[in-house]
Amino acid sequence: MKTVYSPLHAGHAGQMELVTAAIVPGFEKPSRAEFIKARVESEKLGPIIAPVEHDLAAAKRVHRADYIDFLPTVWPQWVESGFQGSAMPFTWPTRGLRGDVAPKRIDALLGYYSFDGGATFVEGTWAAIKSSYDVALTAAALVKDGERSAFALCRPPGHHAGAGFMGGYCYINNAAVAAQWFRDQGAKRVSILDVDYHHGNGTQEIFYGRADVQVLNLHGDPMVEYPFFLGHADERGAGEGEGFNINYPMPFGTTWDAWNASLEDACAKLAAYAPDVVVVSLGVDTFEKDPISQFKLKSPDYPKIGQRIAKLGLPTLFVQEGGYAVEEIGINAVGVLTGFEDR
Amino acid sequence: MKTVYSPLHAGHAGQMELVTAAIVPGFEKPSRAEFIKARVESEKLGPIIAPVEHDLAAAKRVHRADYIDFLPTVWPQWVESGFQGSAMPFTWPTRGLRGDVAPKRIDALLGYYSFDGGATFVEGTWAAIKSSYDVALTAAALVKDGERSAFALCRPPGHHAGAGFMGGYCYINNAAVAAQWFRDQGAKRVSILDVDYHHGNGTQEIFYGRADVQVLNLHGDPMVEYPFFLGHADERGAGEGEGFNINYPMPFGTTWDAWNASLEDACAKLAAYAPDVVVVSLGVDTFEKDPISQFKLKSPDYPKIGQRIAKLGLPTLFVQEGGYAVEEIGINAVGVLTGFEDR
Ligand SMILES: [Zn+2]
Ligand SMILES: [Zn+2]
Repeated sequence: MKTVYSPLHAGHAGQMELVTAAIVPGFEKPSRAEFIKARVESEKLGPIIAPVEHDLAAAKRVHRADYIDFLPTVWPQWVESGFQGSAMPFTWPTRGLRGDVAPKRIDALLGYYSFDGGATFVEGTWAAIKSSYDVALTAAALVKDGERSAFALCRPPGHHAGAGFMGGYCYINNAAVAAQWFRDQGAKRVSILDVDYHHGNGTQEIFYGRADVQVLNLHGDPMVEYPFFLGHADERGAGEGEGFNINYPMPFGTTWDAWNASLEDACAKLAAYAPDVVVVSLGVDTFEKDPISQFKLKSPDYPKIGQRIAKLGLPTLFVQEGGYAVEEIGINAVGVLTGFEDR
Repeated sequence: MKTVYSPLHAGHAGQMELVTAAIVPGFEKPSRAEFIKARVESEKLGPIIAPVEHDLAAAKRVHRADYIDFLPTVWPQWVESGFQGSAMPFTWPTRGLRGDVAPKRIDALLGYYSFDGGATFVEGTWAAIKSSYDVALTAAALVKDGERSAFALCRPPGHHAGAGFMGGYCYINNAAVAAQWFRDQGAKRVSILDVDYHHGNGTQEIFYGRADVQVLNLHGDPMVEYPFFLGHADERGAGEGEGFNINYPMPFGTTWDAWNASLEDACAKLAAYAPDVVVVSLGVDTFEKDPISQFKLKSPDYPKIGQRIAKLGLPTLFVQEGGYAVEEIGINAVGVLTGFEDR
């Protein structure tokens, strides 16, 4: 399996994030991608190739154009406004407030286009976002051109980013971009299987009204876990999309057997949908030692995930999402991929 | 003019707030109320009386019952959950996310019931909120019982709090509670005149669909000023409330002449509405030295505000809102009140 990787991710470093009652160094840090890349190499998964640069047209197929146009301007605006530290918002347009008028101040715009203080900017952030997007599209093209699978080693991740908002370390929704790109390249149906610990609220929001992209999410119960405000089992899609969004919220402490039962059910529904291609939102923060997550998967479980996905017998694009246990992130992420290759 | 004041506000002290890219000690601090009280005394405005305790029924007339029931539980839940520091949220249900399912974790619930990290809790916060509510209702009763005017020295303030959310230092909307209470006591029409520097987004949201409470707001243009996501001139009310919400957004640097022109227009519309009683949301962060605001009113301007309001010839309840230039807050707030009394 080929891996697509860009060193530009490393410029997104040192950014701070808002967590419960504190602003702390981001858990989403460059070493995450470096540990994965090192494991790709040591496991001899296959060639590591550089991304091809793309314009932003594919991003605007799933995101609001004004949102995408905003992202490259954040850091320059922040600096020009004289603000210090990581660019982050401090107030948000929740219910009862207007979402139709964009304010003219950078700290307010950050709130307008987000749902938390977890997707923040430093000088190198936009270049990292853009490289992550290029990585996803380049890997998608490998699969479209006949590879059985490819690995988009994306950083920053994407699945919390919706049509018009960032959050949870995510800016451009790489998996959603790739799924839409497959559609635009002629795929009739695409399935997105999100195995990250956290609900992919952005992915769900983007495709919620559509039947041509099936979205399956396995994740911590939003009643008690981030992102809290989406990911319940009763969210099954709307309109034409009814039945094509499938959520598997699971409780704190979920171990392999229970998690795997959800995966089996998801794979059965995926197979019944019979997509032309599968996009896997590959988060490994389901790991027992993840510092911000509450599931109890162990390293030997990850190859089994890959094996099960391989059994679907479909062209498969893996897109890196979360995973914050840095020491083991390579072992677990690449474990899924070697499992997929059954070696 | 009688002032209603409770020392319980002082327990809401040392709380932190989220501002642009930092968590800092709250600008909304106990000395604000103490400086005002001292000025009430030194200017011999009139007796200072203690509030009568009320149950929360009047709060639930303008706020969601679940929201009001939540507020007293915040600090106990926060402590029980093992969190440190001020209780504050870190993620919010903005557009694309659900607002109909309350999560079960205190830090998530704080996001569910707020639009920023500016209304935070320490141990004494609920007692202060409750005392501020009692202060407003007690002062309202003085006006209902025949006083020409009364001053509710409320702290914390209230005008950013909506039916189901806190934010911007505000939890229970004291002015809205008082206005509704006047209605429930027989007033046919009530006007709320909000002269605080910031748009009273909560007050607007609460009464937006109603013709029986006119809401007039003079404030910094939300395109560039907090709360950003409400307060534009085109927000004129909805349904039966069409025409009964009137906003006067003004640019940074606004001085007395321009500000007063808005006040004149607002007073003309208020007089034409012919309410039975006026509730003034009295913020003095329009002051030129206010540390977080951008208007340029001077201390001699504040008595002129009071004089103009007095010319309406209507029973008037003053409810304290913002003002963060602590040294002058008493001079300016009490300046409005002595101006009203034309002395
Ligand atoms: Zn995650
Ligand atoms: Zn204010």
